[in-house]
Amino acid sequence: MKNFMFYNPTQIVFGKDTIKKLDKLVPQESRVLITYGGGSIKRNGVYDQVIQALGNRKVFEFGSIEPNPHYETCLKCVDFIKENNIDFVLAVGGGSVIDATKFIVAASLYEGEDKWEILLTGGNKITKAMPFGTVLTLPATASEMNNGAVITKKETLEKLAFHSEHCFPKFSILDPQTTFTLPERQIANGIADTFVHVMEQYLTYPVRNQISDRFAESIIITLIEEAPKVFKDPMDYEVRANLMWAATMGLNGWIACGAVQDWATHMIGHELTAFHDIDHGTTLSIVLPGVMRVMKDEKGEKIIQFGERVFGIKEGSKEERIEKTIKATEEFFESICIPTRLSHVGLNENCIEPIVQRMKERNWSLGENGTINYEKVRLILLDRL
Amino acid sequence: MKNFMFYNPTQIVFGKDTIKKLDKLVPQESRVLITYGGGSIKRNGVYDQVIQALGNRKVFEFGSIEPNPHYETCLKCVDFIKENNIDFVLAVGGGSVIDATKFIVAASLYEGEDKWEILLTGGNKITKAMPFGTVLTLPATASEMNNGAVITKKETLEKLAFHSEHCFPKFSILDPQTTFTLPERQIANGIADTFVHVMEQYLTYPVRNQISDRFAESIIITLIEEAPKVFKDPMDYEVRANLMWAATMGLNGWIACGAVQDWATHMIGHELTAFHDIDHGTTLSIVLPGVMRVMKDEKGEKIIQFGERVFGIKEGSKEERIEKTIKATEEFFESICIPTRLSHVGLNENCIEPIVQRMKERNWSLGENGTINYEKVRLILLDRL
Repeated sequence: MKNFMFYNPTQIVFGKDTIKKLDKLVPQESRVLITYGGGSIKRNGVYDQVIQALGNRKVFEFGSIEPNPHYETCLKCVDFIKENNIDFVLAVGGGSVIDATKFIVAASLYEGEDKWEILLTGGNKITKAMPFGTVLTLPATASEMNNGAVITKKETLEKLAFHSEHCFPKFSILDPQTTFTLPERQIANGIADTFVHVMEQYLTYPVRNQISDRFAESIIITLIEEAPKVFKDPMDYEVRANLMWAATMGLNGWIACGAVQDWATHMIGHELTAFHDIDHGTTLSIVLPGVMRVMKDEKGEKIIQFGERVFGIKEGSKEERIEKTIKATEEFFESICIPTRLSHVGLNENCIEPIVQRMKERNWSLGENGTINYEKVRLILLDRL
Repeated sequence: MKNFMFYNPTQIVFGKDTIKKLDKLVPQESRVLITYGGGSIKRNGVYDQVIQALGNRKVFEFGSIEPNPHYETCLKCVDFIKENNIDFVLAVGGGSVIDATKFIVAASLYEGEDKWEILLTGGNKITKAMPFGTVLTLPATASEMNNGAVITKKETLEKLAFHSEHCFPKFSILDPQTTFTLPERQIANGIADTFVHVMEQYLTYPVRNQISDRFAESIIITLIEEAPKVFKDPMDYEVRANLMWAATMGLNGWIACGAVQDWATHMIGHELTAFHDIDHGTTLSIVLPGVMRVMKDEKGEKIIQFGERVFGIKEGSKEERIEKTIKATEEFFESICIPTRLSHVGLNENCIEPIVQRMKERNWSLGENGTINYEKVRLILLDRL
């Protein structure tokens, strides 16, 4: 078990009809900015519930935050906040809206001239941020209960992440009913995102970290059990509740305690999104099996444990069990109709070299052992054609 | 899955040689009071590490906090704090020291004349508390990462609990090395305490709470796997680390998310300690099998799930599987040499009526359904002779 620090002060308010609790959670007398995305919250009733709960507070709006939120959009919002003397921000939406909001609350008080510096320094230079809360409507990223965010600079097609202890939401409201109207593609992306978050913190090498290992497996087993049900009966509250909580658990720091982490799948996936605007969850379900296969020597022991405890794979040689487990992972993704190959999203081998070249330029060594260099990235992507 | 609120701002610093981080965690320039118990910290080197890490801060001491800490002792400490203008308290020890410290930091700023009111109102009237941190040396209660405490009034043999959002430790340092020198009896008590904490939040009735259920099972499986190892090789760091983290997970609120809770075993166990000064963990290993057996109609479905997932019990009728699971639970406790019957701690049926009468006077209805009245308590204790 590795030494670790853990700190997560976000208050979670989970369950049916909980949006009305905003009245107690958002400071009275505040000038509140609601940030949101494409406007689905106005069609599914969430916006109305939020407005009603905010009562007499002075409310402003900033919508049209795109998936994989753009730095450029965020900067406009920072200007809006300054012009309107906003003192509390409420993100209503999924991970993109919440990620954008984290950047916005940090950038609004950031003293450096160039706000992109926040991304270039991974958040290290953030010393303060405006207070914000969230109303989650799309379970996937766990951004509602962590202090990280990923922002894309449209100008240069760069997608970078930052973290800061100042960027935890004060609170997050998770009402599973808000997810009833999600399109199937977003549900599948959310499940894949959660699945791969867990794997990034689990599928590395063993360090006798029994609890976090079993917690990670618990989340994956829950995804595998609940995923078919959500497509069969989209209005089943309990299924939605389990999937929503699973997504939060996937990246709220709990399963990272004492664990060794990877994150190569995400780093490679980010490039697919940056270059080709592929859904984030989809990039992960495409890349993960390639990482497992190319890195099977380093990850073998944990792949075998994963196969046994999650898929019940106990027969065969080590090699066979590893390959069976990778196949079972691919098959799970296929069962929720999310792409697992580059060809499924209209890409061919031409997409590979630009990504490999960027990795080479940045001199990145990814993975838990720092052994995934640009040449390994090429092998991983070739596996996914 | 039940609606729930979750909030836990305690910072955890876990791992080898982490006590030195006190230097960054305790405010500089503060007048620090170290609270501790019987003095084992002075024999095992923990005290010296703490003093060294606190550097030039002005340090005071208040020792001799007893197991199942006394209200009367805590009041003396409150006076000491006022006399010496203490502004930060550092609890160094196990659950008793930390529980006492929670009461002390709350009582020091409590405006009511009668501090026992804090217990009588379950902590509801606490509006502020002094800041405090902990260095944990005995994994068991999870007090290091929650906001609750249990205090015993020696005068009246009453043992009551309180909770307050003002009573979370600012930080807790968990260095598994501090547990190397624990006596076997304390190790066993800690394991039983953790085991039953988990059961109180798990063994009720099913509410399709997949993640918390599996997390709870993960902790119990870890205890069952690691417990034999700790007695066989007390210096195995990884075993100590897993047991220490398991104990914290048992009652830091994580597995309570969305769950139905019981706590009857604790309420009955508290009376055994109040009347007969039995170790807290031991009261739990004695009482739990009785609660399972007497309440098997209400708990049957979860007992069967527990038996299957934790002990692999899949054969037989429902009744048989329930009884096999209760037996397996008793056998686990026996395997770590902790008493499971009243007779093991020198008690006979004479101990039962005073407890039953107190339950009757208080008109308590315990358990997840409020169906454990004084008559059920009698049956539970009769089962444990």
